[in-house]
Amino acid sequence: MDRARIETLLNEVREGRTDVSAALEKLRDLPYEDIGFAKLDHHRALRTGMPEVIFAAGKTTEQVATIFGRMAIAGGNVLATRASREAYEAVLAVESRAEFHEMARCITLTQAETTPGKGSIAVVCAGTSDLPVAEEACVTARLMGNTVELIADVGVAGIHRLLAQKDSLRAARVLIVCAGMEGALPTVVAGMVNAPVLAVPTSVGYGASFGGVAALLGMLNTCAPNVSVVNIDNGFGAACIASLINRM
Amino acid sequence: MDRARIETLLNEVREGRTDVSAALEKLRDLPYEDIGFAKLDHHRALRTGMPEVIFAAGKTTEQVATIFGRMAIAGGNVLATRASREAYEAVLAVESRAEFHEMARCITLTQAETTPGKGSIAVVCAGTSDLPVAEEACVTARLMGNTVELIADVGVAGIHRLLAQKDSLRAARVLIVCAGMEGALPTVVAGMVNAPVLAVPTSVGYGASFGGVAALLGMLNTCAPNVSVVNIDNGFGAACIASLINRM
Amino acid sequence: MDRARIETLLNEVREGRTDVSAALEKLRDLPYEDIGFAKLDHHRALRTGMPEVIFAAGKTTEQVATIFGRMAIAGGNVLATRASREAYEAVLAVESRAEFHEMARCITLTQAETTPGKGSIAVVCAGTSDLPVAEEACVTARLMGNTVELIADVGVAGIHRLLAQKDSLRAARVLIVCAGMEGALPTVVAGMVNAPVLAVPTSVGYGASFGGVAALLGMLNTCAPNVSVVNIDNGFGAACIASLINRM
Amino acid sequence: MDRARIETLLNEVREGRTDVSAALEKLRDLPYEDIGFAKLDHHRALRTGMPEVIFAAGKTTEQVATIFGRMAIAGGNVLATRASREAYEAVLAVESRAEFHEMARCITLTQAETTPGKGSIAVVCAGTSDLPVAEEACVTARLMGNTVELIADVGVAGIHRLLAQKDSLRAARVLIVCAGMEGALPTVVAGMVNAPVLAVPTSVGYGASFGGVAALLGMLNTCAPNVSVVNIDNGFGAACIASLINRM
Amino acid sequence: MDRARIETLLNEVREGRTDVSAALEKLRDLPYEDIGFAKLDHHRALRTGMPEVIFAAGKTTEQVATIFGRMAIAGGNVLATRASREAYEAVLAVESRAEFHEMARCITLTQAETTPGKGSIAVVCAGTSDLPVAEEACVTARLMGNTVELIADVGVAGIHRLLAQKDSLRAARVLIVCAGMEGALPTVVAGMVNAPVLAVPTSVGYGASFGGVAALLGMLNTCAPNVSVVNIDNGFGAACIASLINRM
Amino acid sequence: MDRARIETLLNEVREGRTDVSAALEKLRDLPYEDIGFAKLDHHRALRTGMPEVIFAAGKTTEQVATIFGRMAIAGGNVLATRASREAYEAVLAVESRAEFHEMARCITLTQAETTPGKGSIAVVCAGTSDLPVAEEACVTARLMGNTVELIADVGVAGIHRLLAQKDSLRAARVLIVCAGMEGALPTVVAGMVNAPVLAVPTSVGYGASFGGVAALLGMLNTCAPNVSVVNIDNGFGAACIASLINRM
Amino acid sequence: MDRARIETLLNEVREGRTDVSAALEKLRDLPYEDIGFAKLDHHRALRTGMPEVIFAAGKTTEQVATIFGRMAIAGGNVLATRASREAYEAVLAVESRAEFHEMARCITLTQAETTPGKGSIAVVCAGTSDLPVAEEACVTARLMGNTVELIADVGVAGIHRLLAQKDSLRAARVLIVCAGMEGALPTVVAGMVNAPVLAVPTSVGYGASFGGVAALLGMLNTCAPNVSVVNIDNGFGAACIASLINRM
Amino acid sequence: MDRARIETLLNEVREGRTDVSAALEKLRDLPYEDIGFAKLDHHRALRTGMPEVIFAAGKTTEQVATIFGRMAIAGGNVLATRASREAYEAVLAVESRAEFHEMARCITLTQAETTPGKGSIAVVCAGTSDLPVAEEACVTARLMGNTVELIADVGVAGIHRLLAQKDSLRAARVLIVCAGMEGALPTVVAGMVNAPVLAVPTSVGYGASFGGVAALLGMLNTCAPNVSVVNIDNGFGAACIASLINRM
Repeated sequence: MDRARIETLLNEVREGRTDVSAALEKLRDLPYEDIGFAKLDHHRALRTGMPEVIFAAGKTTEQVATIFGRMAIAGGNVLATRASREAYEAVLAVESRAEFHEMARCITLTQAETTPGKGSIAVVCAGTSDLPVAEEACVTARLMGNTVELIADVGVAGIHRLLAQKDSLRAARVLIVCAGMEGALPTVVAGMVNAPVLAVPTSVGYGASFGGVAALLGMLNTCAPNVSVVNIDNGFGAACIASLINRM
Repeated sequence: MDRARIETLLNEVREGRTDVSAALEKLRDLPYEDIGFAKLDHHRALRTGMPEVIFAAGKTTEQVATIFGRMAIAGGNVLATRASREAYEAVLAVESRAEFHEMARCITLTQAETTPGKGSIAVVCAGTSDLPVAEEACVTARLMGNTVELIADVGVAGIHRLLAQKDSLRAARVLIVCAGMEGALPTVVAGMVNAPVLAVPTSVGYGASFGGVAALLGMLNTCAPNVSVVNIDNGFGAACIASLINRM
Repeated sequence: MDRARIETLLNEVREGRTDVSAALEKLRDLPYEDIGFAKLDHHRALRTGMPEVIFAAGKTTEQVATIFGRMAIAGGNVLATRASREAYEAVLAVESRAEFHEMARCITLTQAETTPGKGSIAVVCAGTSDLPVAEEACVTARLMGNTVELIADVGVAGIHRLLAQKDSLRAARVLIVCAGMEGALPTVVAGMVNAPVLAVPTSVGYGASFGGVAALLGMLNTCAPNVSVVNIDNGFGAACIASLINRM
Repeated sequence: MDRARIETLLNEVREGRTDVSAALEKLRDLPYEDIGFAKLDHHRALRTGMPEVIFAAGKTTEQVATIFGRMAIAGGNVLATRASREAYEAVLAVESRAEFHEMARCITLTQAETTPGKGSIAVVCAGTSDLPVAEEACVTARLMGNTVELIADVGVAGIHRLLAQKDSLRAARVLIVCAGMEGALPTVVAGMVNAPVLAVPTSVGYGASFGGVAALLGMLNTCAPNVSVVNIDNGFGAACIASLINRM
Repeated sequence: MDRARIETLLNEVREGRTDVSAALEKLRDLPYEDIGFAKLDHHRALRTGMPEVIFAAGKTTEQVATIFGRMAIAGGNVLATRASREAYEAVLAVESRAEFHEMARCITLTQAETTPGKGSIAVVCAGTSDLPVAEEACVTARLMGNTVELIADVGVAGIHRLLAQKDSLRAARVLIVCAGMEGALPTVVAGMVNAPVLAVPTSVGYGASFGGVAALLGMLNTCAPNVSVVNIDNGFGAACIASLINRM
Repeated sequence: MDRARIETLLNEVREGRTDVSAALEKLRDLPYEDIGFAKLDHHRALRTGMPEVIFAAGKTTEQVATIFGRMAIAGGNVLATRASREAYEAVLAVESRAEFHEMARCITLTQAETTPGKGSIAVVCAGTSDLPVAEEACVTARLMGNTVELIADVGVAGIHRLLAQKDSLRAARVLIVCAGMEGALPTVVAGMVNAPVLAVPTSVGYGASFGGVAALLGMLNTCAPNVSVVNIDNGFGAACIASLINRM
Repeated sequence: MDRARIETLLNEVREGRTDVSAALEKLRDLPYEDIGFAKLDHHRALRTGMPEVIFAAGKTTEQVATIFGRMAIAGGNVLATRASREAYEAVLAVESRAEFHEMARCITLTQAETTPGKGSIAVVCAGTSDLPVAEEACVTARLMGNTVELIADVGVAGIHRLLAQKDSLRAARVLIVCAGMEGALPTVVAGMVNAPVLAVPTSVGYGASFGGVAALLGMLNTCAPNVSVVNIDNGFGAACIASLINRM
Repeated sequence: MDRARIETLLNEVREGRTDVSAALEKLRDLPYEDIGFAKLDHHRALRTGMPEVIFAAGKTTEQVATIFGRMAIAGGNVLATRASREAYEAVLAVESRAEFHEMARCITLTQAETTPGKGSIAVVCAGTSDLPVAEEACVTARLMGNTVELIADVGVAGIHRLLAQKDSLRAARVLIVCAGMEGALPTVVAGMVNAPVLAVPTSVGYGASFGGVAALLGMLNTCAPNVSVVNIDNGFGAACIASLINRM
């Protein structure tokens, strides 16, 4: 549509129905809504296949609520990540249908149809402490129309627990694997499947884990060729990519 | 086939045609060929959807040639990465059909049919110096049956050069974006497409680029939700994942 | 004046009106006022073209108020950065004309004429979370007599939002660009203008952003030749340099 | 001109003299020349006020010579940095007027008039070992039409040597200060002048200098408000910015 | 005395007045007093020329008070560093003569004569925020019998303020120089005197100061040959060494 | 038993008493108990010689109590490390026999017999502040059936205190040495004994200790050949390994 | 013997057969042989259970040969690690029985009986490139009297290859596991056995492996409780500790 | 003399014998000799108590020879550090009395009387590989008029070798202790003496020694209060400070 609209505009210029300066102005205004402290990019879905999302961590609860409300009016599904319960309460005052996912620290609003993913996404995590990141991935992927299976607590030091899940792992079309500490789980999982694996290092650990750096380095240095990596604790990003792949 | 063979084996045990210790032995022998200093995993393709590959950097030219020869006999396509011309000459003595890709530093043997990818893979790079990594990705992806388009020298400091490639970028089913220095190219590309972007930091740069660390960090911290990252200079890995996705 | 005063002094020595030891003493006393825990450098403006400023972060509210009061008496404009509301209230008790800029965390007193800058300074930032740093730059630059335009929320993952601002960007005589996460915005902006760009990495981000280090490295490794960099979150410093350039 | 040409094009579309698809094509072709492994951006001068430059370090001598030749034909002045004597000899075969600056490791071709800078640029360095970086800055700034004064060997451990240069320092309209080891020189110089100071950390040092990181950190943490920083050893970048400022 | 006592013991063994196993036991018991969770090393003064000191940061207030009380009984002067007011109050209950130095975060007890230092120690610091570290050095050095002069707020960006203190600096027999941010002050001071300079990096700064690392690296890479360095914020250690030197 | 049970199962398959799919199911179910957010690995003792342990730091008090209760029912000894008093109180509500070790931050339940270690384990630490880590090692090692001797406050700057403990050190079959700051103690101890030394870096220190990194690096670079290292503050891990060795 | 000799000496002092100053001298001379640039510690075996070893990397071939010769005369077995073929040839001139192990880069002389280890040591490595480190461990462990089994090329991305070695792994009394890249192998192996695992990170890898740092961090952050770690590439150290344990 | 000369000059100004501009000029010229690429600071000895020294590492052999020759003519003793044999041969052509110290990599010329130090300086090092750094310290200290005793190969893993040197260590007025790897030697030595200890980390080691960083951190985190630290491998700097102290 984005492209179509621009072609239309150029044709209008050609036919003299729109003059040059007006055309320039329209091209500029089209892509976003300016609400002062933020520019909302409602067309993002067209360009990148996923809605713009509110990263709540660096924003006041008022900012979160205002942006959430505007996005709700735009009609799509809405997601706020790294959100506190306080932010959720501020959002509720603006949009009563919003839901809170405590462990995932996410606020969602489901109001639009989404293209369903073609297969299922497996979200795998190494330990109980990795669950918040894994849940952020689950909530995000489900909001984008995917069937998600969570496989928890299958760390590599008890390899038989992981092997017991081989069928579930192989059933997935794409996998998200979250792990802190040494971050070895994505490599081992990747060796068991023939699907893309998205590795999410988590900040779980202590001492020389350096807030997830050890896990991140482990994943980047994987000897498995089907692993790519996102930022530490970025369950949301992994789910976006998994969702794009699952729609193919 | 792997699973089928094991079921067969278990049924043989059940029917008394194979005794328990022999079954244990067979299960052990099945998955690889042992050539002393390496265990060749010919079944890897079954498990992960891509052939085992020779990472030549840490091996002697003799080791590279020996492994390459054994893999050639196994009948699949063969790839050696990070290979010197010397390694290629040693391989030629063993397998005369091998080809050398100088800029990509790859040796290939194409002898088997591959499942063709469904769409095309775009390999994008920021500068001339990133070409070896981009070429490694191209060679790998082509060997795995993909149509590949290389878009070179479109760094973000001259954004119009990149914008001019918008149609080529949007035509790809999955993109590999290689960049050194500040590593911003994958983020900008990702904002222009609705496909998964695999970011490959390169070790191109000087001073505070720290051999690719600056680019790596830039990519991990991307504000685009459709970017995942592989290790510095790992064009091969990016191509493997892109190929898996492109077959879906 | 500094130089003139010293020449005068040397001439007095020559003419016998001031003896050598007195001259030595005067040269020593001239440059600052000693208030015990600090030496106030009222002549700094003469040497460097900008007033000394109070970095409030490492000081007690009492220290901030005392120094602010002394500087107010000296007659120039006064600026305190990284100031809390508590510090502002302590300052108000000493100097009732002081103003507080909450988002920028700055206290200002405007009482002196300043040489106006010749053109305008654009302050550009990537996201809502970068606003405190961008506002610190705006407040500082305005206090030094510059016209400032703030362009917010134009991150590189939605490049069209940035392109829509091309005219505003090109209208500026010098630009300050603040960005966290991957820190790519200064490079892209710099490719669109022919003016100096001052890049300010912000501590916005999470995981492998390492409190602004990823953005800092990205900016230092820029492939654009018209970018220089200041410390993480140092909106003040960027504004000082921009102001010096804008007066040329 | 860039803007003018695009307005002309849009008017041609309006008047029916150019059709839409042709216009799209022209807009794409205009900005650069594609020579296969590189896209030469002859319009860069229009956009950013300085010519595109060849960073020779990551390129073969053939690539350097080819690009240099093409740029020479385009008519502007040409600069290659981080160039070896071998690269220079390859360039000479293509363009006999090229000059080599051994200490600066630069190849230049001066054939076009440049807008002269309004004042002079001082290039200051701490020790003899910093000279290659300082000379790169000098060569670059001179090629861009500036008067340059080099002030060498004035490290901060012998502060009187630096103080003796006060008049020269104050005479400059903008200063480039190169230093390795502890990187303190830009701060001390900045306290003596009221002009912008561009700090260039050099990789000179040993042990805990970490190839220039100590100097870089020192410069970023400067307590002087008129210092901004470029990448380690980036004399070229500092000269570009200084030149932009000096033309104001 | 330590050596004398052991010689005596060996002679007693020789003369049969002490048998071998008793001698072994005595040699073991002599050097410290065991109070369960700590072994108090009252002989440390004999071995190293300075009393053992309580580093309060990692201890409970009860542990601090107990150790302080035992040391007070041993008769020497006592020092606790990094002590809170709460720790001081617990100490007061045990030893009413103890004094608290708030800015220096030190508790002291002065009850013994000390060998006075031969000259004076200058403690120099760059900014107001460095004062706690500088004061820790002052308190420690005074307790060890030295005359101390504090010279505050003489940062290198206003070099004239430092030059004005030249006589005071040259009057000192040994100097302690504390600085955060870029950590350049010790180098500049060291170039002005012919005495040893002990550099103390402080954790003052923000962004790329990394809690004092930038200052530490700056000091280690000093181009002045008379500077040695202690740990970040270690005013105590610098004072111990300065005191040892000042007694020579 | 693990192996025995699987052999039995295979024999049952052979003899037709169990069919193939049931056998697959049993092999999968055997190794752990699934309680939703965690999979309890009661067979771990069989595989690795030590019970699974609850790392309480990243878990809610409810999660700790639930897991502790389930493990208590399984009949072995139970250990929770990094536990707060609050977690202990939640555990008490579930299992009244649980004990709390405040300094060690451990909750234990002793109900099963353990194979006693053959000799004793010495736990050595450098300073009072290292005691929590040393105590975690002591509690863990005792729960696993070992005799433990704690030797505290024997830092290397007072080498005679350490030398006085030579007999105790040599009496141990295996040693655990905890140290923060420069982390030199394990090396010195290792030079005095002919037993394996497990080095535990602690996060004790300040400034350039970087939360235990300095100690960790010191230990990894030991010039003694009988030292191996565990993660920072990992007293538990060191005790597990020491216990395994002590049972040999 | 060391202790016995000192007791004898003290008794001689007691009985007047040795005077005090002579006794002091003897105690000093006893422990080593001084050959100018090195002090040979022939008694080390008594103290630590393993012979002193020549780390050849930082020494000239002459130094290596001289020390090797002296140690050969002392009668024990001799080992030089990180030795070049040139060093071996220099050693041969001094001691014709010396052997060279090319892949392990070790020179050995076997002339003394050693206490045999009680069980076997398994040396496991992930890839062909880890073999030099693994071989250094093998050569060292064998020289110290152990039976060693090498299990090569069992990386975690093909977990079935590792599982196939379960019996060999469980047969070992202690295991040495060498891995580069993500360093996950020791954790997975440790979960399969109930013996101590010594993890050796290798410098194998590229990009973000940082010369073995990624593997080192992965091993330190292991979630298996029976893993301890030695320095990068330190196969020798791991073998020393394994040998000590295997003699218990 | 420096001060005297300036007083004289000011008096000449006062008496009209020198006019103001000439006085300014003289003050500028006085302190150094300008030889184009370097400014020789012959007065440095007056200011800092030690001659300027040539750090040869970053200079051409011609530059080293030229500076060495000029300094020789100035009449003092001359020292070049980090010098190759080639540099020495170039120096010899200019100044035939120059001497080369191969292991220390120093060129010296002894022609002037120096104030002898009052006591002796002990230079202690841990291993044979640390000798180049220790020798640099010895050569420097001897050239400055000190008696130096070298105590080599007394690493902390064989503590008895170090204890045997107690008398030598205690005889020194100041100590320089060089160590690589874990860098623990200065701490242990410092606990045995009551003199200042200058710690020199060396780049000796491998793996996680990171070119001397592990040793540097160990020394900065020393628990001994009489240790200060210089840059990695900086034997020269340590000797300068030791010499200053030894003259007191």
